[in-house]
Amino acid sequence: MFEREVYIARRQELLRRMAGEKGVALFLGNVESPAQYGDNCYKWRQDSNWIYFFGIDEPRFAATVDLETGEETLYADDFGIDDIIWMGPMPSVRELADRAGVAKTAPCGALAAALKGRQVHFLPASRHYNQMLLAKLLGLAPEEVVSAGKAGCAKASEPLVRAVIGMRLVKEPREIAAIDAACDLGYEMHTIARRGIRPGRIEQEIVGEMEGLALSKGWGVSFATILTQHGEIFHCHSHELPVDPGRLMVVDAGVEANDHYASDFTRTYPTAGRFTSRQRDIYQTVYECNELAFSMTRPGVAYRDVHLAVAAHMLENLRDLDLVRGDLDGMVEDGIAGLFMPHGLGHNMGLDVHDMEDLGENLVGYDDDQVRSPQLGLGSLRMARVLQPGHVVTDEPGIYFIPALIGQWKREGTDGGRVNYAKLEDYYDFGGIRLEDDVLVTEGGARRLGRRRLPIAPDEVETIMQNDQL
Amino acid sequence: MFEREVYIARRQELLRRMAGEKGVALFLGNVESPAQYGDNCYKWRQDSNWIYFFGIDEPRFAATVDLETGEETLYADDFGIDDIIWMGPMPSVRELADRAGVAKTAPCGALAAALKGRQVHFLPASRHYNQMLLAKLLGLAPEEVVSAGKAGCAKASEPLVRAVIGMRLVKEPREIAAIDAACDLGYEMHTIARRGIRPGRIEQEIVGEMEGLALSKGWGVSFATILTQHGEIFHCHSHELPVDPGRLMVVDAGVEANDHYASDFTRTYPTAGRFTSRQRDIYQTVYECNELAFSMTRPGVAYRDVHLAVAAHMLENLRDLDLVRGDLDGMVEDGIAGLFMPHGLGHNMGLDVHDMEDLGENLVGYDDDQVRSPQLGLGSLRMARVLQPGHVVTDEPGIYFIPALIGQWKREGTDGGRVNYAKLEDYYDFGGIRLEDDVLVTEGGARRLGRRRLPIAPDEVETIMQNDQL
Repeated sequence: MFEREVYIARRQELLRRMAGEKGVALFLGNVESPAQYGDNCYKWRQDSNWIYFFGIDEPRFAATVDLETGEETLYADDFGIDDIIWMGPMPSVRELADRAGVAKTAPCGALAAALKGRQVHFLPASRHYNQMLLAKLLGLAPEEVVSAGKAGCAKASEPLVRAVIGMRLVKEPREIAAIDAACDLGYEMHTIARRGIRPGRIEQEIVGEMEGLALSKGWGVSFATILTQHGEIFHCHSHELPVDPGRLMVVDAGVEANDHYASDFTRTYPTAGRFTSRQRDIYQTVYECNELAFSMTRPGVAYRDVHLAVAAHMLENLRDLDLVRGDLDGMVEDGIAGLFMPHGLGHNMGLDVHDMEDLGENLVGYDDDQVRSPQLGLGSLRMARVLQPGHVVTDEPGIYFIPALIGQWKREGTDGGRVNYAKLEDYYDFGGIRLEDDVLVTEGGARRLGRRRLPIAPDEVETIMQNDQL
Repeated sequence: MFEREVYIARRQELLRRMAGEKGVALFLGNVESPAQYGDNCYKWRQDSNWIYFFGIDEPRFAATVDLETGEETLYADDFGIDDIIWMGPMPSVRELADRAGVAKTAPCGALAAALKGRQVHFLPASRHYNQMLLAKLLGLAPEEVVSAGKAGCAKASEPLVRAVIGMRLVKEPREIAAIDAACDLGYEMHTIARRGIRPGRIEQEIVGEMEGLALSKGWGVSFATILTQHGEIFHCHSHELPVDPGRLMVVDAGVEANDHYASDFTRTYPTAGRFTSRQRDIYQTVYECNELAFSMTRPGVAYRDVHLAVAAHMLENLRDLDLVRGDLDGMVEDGIAGLFMPHGLGHNMGLDVHDMEDLGENLVGYDDDQVRSPQLGLGSLRMARVLQPGHVVTDEPGIYFIPALIGQWKREGTDGGRVNYAKLEDYYDFGGIRLEDDVLVTEGGARRLGRRRLPIAPDEVETIMQNDQL
């Protein structure tokens, strides 16, 4: 936890942004989430909005902020002797309220009555338990309190959602320091991964070593580790293959630090330690796209335009390889890059690795005058906004050869004659390449987060992989 | 997955045990469980009953078994192109049904109609999502479909619960082989822990190394690792202390193998590498209790009686140390051992580390003619049944000095004058000791699971800790 003044100031700012609204803002912390039976739970993880406004890293807390009077109340129950035997001496609710700077406390059972007859501003719930609880408290169906992905949650309070996004989107200096520290752990974890890539080892062994580091020095991984020789599968969580020399290994992984700030990096390694010339061509293009995006990242630039510039550069290089043919501007406009990069250039990052995604992707990542594209690729862009100092975004271009998708475009003629399908067939066993850094938008431009950048230039990667073997 | 015949045979046996019942048995697999926002989930873990009867290790499956006709139907939806881009080519529902030996498949949306007007036998739900889903399908409140701990769930089908318990309680040879393998991984993980205990290291660093091994070679840990110098706190999940020479480190941890069978071992180490004489006295008693329990474990013996024999031996030794005074039988009867060991001797273990705990502790662990004790300690005994070949139980006596509990007994006179509180005060900074093995009940007696037993005798522990430092 930060010092109590941080949380007090954040809630004051929230009140200021909600000025004129009636009723109360309701915040729910998380409860433990069962993995198997009720007493065997997944590792405890607090709700990110709760962490931001209250900091208390314990289950079964809720709070209200009265938007009319400013009165704040923390709802939680103290522990009995049974809890102390099983969990040890715990700080009292009163002590925790003091650490969060909240004046008033009440038992959990008093929450329902406190909401009765009031207008309740709530945030969408991602955890299934909080969906049940919110639904019960507010007389709604559980599916009505859930964020529906891009669109968000219609019944949630848009003023509250907008106020929270406005605050969390621009990172405070203490948050930037925390993300830098998470990135340093991410660097360590990725170094373990790179050193672990040796022919014959099973992918799972390397994943375990990586996640062990994340657990030794942080909360754990900030999302399920992607380590795969099938880089063309974006969220491949199967790790049963032996390392096969000659393939490409995509490693997309991050650490969540003990204070819950995230990092998220991707590197792609030639499993043989050296790229084939075909691999190097594609790798060089992705590398150039990553560098191009970083060079364009500065206040006042829309990240959507950075995505489009990356798409153009990618298509230009793919045209040089005779994989696509035609006018560059037309290909960009028609979304041809989406065949090769069917995801967005990046997303916000902070307490969540996709920061605030549960509040609705469009509200988080799009300015009011921006409309989300329906195109494959650009349509998946999570962060399109005009950049401001304090934004933390990922820069993660990629090129993939996805047989099922290529087949679909070919059948349906989606490319309008621009794709050289005959040549693309040579790439069906290629896999994919993605290269991702975490970037802070500064007053003067941008800075890559973390003390050191993971090796990325093709020569640099080959050299360090040779050294890793020594 | 085992071969399909295994699942067919298990469901046939279930039908046999449910003969005469009307309606359908409903099984719900798990869905992914969000850690943060909906797309950032905890590591996928299937429901254990689902694994046992269907084996399919994928989310969003349900099934019905018609108890009148024997007809089986698998409910799930096939994947589209978007899923294939993000998750890769997936087997079809039809292919998965074949692997589970189920003849009929239907989309998820057809489940509600299939249940309409039928008597539905269901198992209690632990996952919050399945609580919502079951409640909706059956027209109940979510809290009505949850297991209420010891008592189980009143609305769930007792015939189905009893049939499942009857089957899962007695392990098949293939399950025993799986548990042996999980125990071998547990041995490796505990060896890493023991070697990691060196003054000055932070507990969390050791936990990360342990969990890394569990993830490298298995699904992960079978429950949140307990590694603490506050052994008197049973479920201490804080790992922020540096290793402090002179204390005792309780390490209670297990691996869940990739096939989801669990192991669960506890060892307690002197952080200095050698026991003090006070530590050795208590350790020796716990060690003797562990050995005594194993020596008594055989078919026909009630595990409740093994717990009581352990309590008697413990009190005898504590009396020799002048920590308690009085008649042994009377102390056992009055539950005085509960002050020192306020938990039970052991629990069943299998696909769940506390096997089937979500089905209701009393139904799982108690024979029909056994009544659960209200006493502290014995009342927490999860496995009291008369042992049968194929039972897998833990043998985990412990002695703890819990200041809050001792204070309560002293204030309330719970001990009836048997406890020497003056002397006990010397032990307030002692912590606790627990020693746990996993044991299979065999035709002729019992066998400790895993190829090798973790070092446990006091001299053996000191010797190996000296060798670890070399």
